[in-house]
Amino acid sequence: MYPEALQLLIDEFAKLPTVGPKTAKRLAFHILNAPEERAHSLARALVDVKRKVRTCSVCGNVSGGELCSICDDSRRDAHVICVVATARDLAALEAPGVFHGVYHVLGGLLSPIDGVGPSSLRIDELLARIDDSVEEVILATNPTVAGESTALYLQKVLADRAVRITRIAQGLPIGADMEYADALTLKLSLDGRHSV
Amino acid sequence: MYPEALQLLIDEFAKLPTVGPKTAKRLAFHILNAPEERAHSLARALVDVKRKVRTCSVCGNVSGGELCSICDDSRRDAHVICVVATARDLAALEAPGVFHGVYHVLGGLLSPIDGVGPSSLRIDELLARIDDSVEEVILATNPTVAGESTALYLQKVLADRAVRITRIAQGLPIGADMEYADALTLKLSLDGRHSV
Repeated sequence: MYPEALQLLIDEFAKLPTVGPKTAKRLAFHILNAPEERAHSLARALVDVKRKVRTCSVCGNVSGGELCSICDDSRRDAHVICVVATARDLAALEAPGVFHGVYHVLGGLLSPIDGVGPSSLRIDELLARIDDSVEEVILATNPTVAGESTALYLQKVLADRAVRITRIAQGLPIGADMEYADALTLKLSLDGRHSV
Repeated sequence: MYPEALQLLIDEFAKLPTVGPKTAKRLAFHILNAPEERAHSLARALVDVKRKVRTCSVCGNVSGGELCSICDDSRRDAHVICVVATARDLAALEAPGVFHGVYHVLGGLLSPIDGVGPSSLRIDELLARIDDSVEEVILATNPTVAGESTALYLQKVLADRAVRITRIAQGLPIGADMEYADALTLKLSLDGRHSV
């Protein structure tokens, strides 16, 4: 139906997450009708990202060099390590600009069903980072089954370390309607109540 | 926040239609974590589509060569020309596989507010195609304001030609609920009623 090169681009777009067959067509036609430079700059960015972006040798965050911008920043408090599943979670936590410690990116969450055990994650690297100078490890994995079990596992392997272990708070998100919240969130919200 | 090359890719993705800032991040991280070949094949497809895909010299459809696969197909009935706004509309009409004539792609719809007048569309090319051998011109533009006015305009400029001019049917789409259909669709559906 379509010329081969166009069909190829549609197929390539359709391999991306969130892109269905209709969106893939729309994107391909957009590129076809856009100035040539648009296609080239996207193509260049795709190739460059694989060539230039690496993993921070300390925390596992995405990085342009040996160290990521956070580990390389002497103003960050290296006494507090916030453990996250992915570099995207790290970016989400950085957005509010309230955390001044450093991070450790696990590279995923424990999920036996998918064959992801402790050795698949950067847990040994985390343990190696925790020396006497580290005061607190914040377990900032998602409040999901995989996130909770990973936090629980880390809690166990860190138990014998002289370090404070904390877990990010769970409860009602801002703007939520109690009437529509699930029972577990409400329970956690009550359990975690604090004096005002 | 992100390494420069990663931010660049996020920005490039965000320029695409339907891709918001969150999806752009997701796509960029997907590429970052995918095998290098994935990024390269998408980059190659982007460059190739601009280099290899051209416009059919007869109908204006996307094409891999001088003629598109439809104009190049001798089994298609060149006596019936179906006029569409874009190559995507053409592809949509081809999908059911019921039309065996040929097409003419206008390259858009009349829209004075956007500065798209008759001379911006491939209307002269359409008139040049209509010789004595053409029996029917189907006006298959969308049933929108722009689509209707374009169809009306074509109807006028074709009025003095010895050719049958038809318009695609309008009415309730399959699976629609009459209760929720708009009044104009219902009116068109009644106006266009046929014996059974």
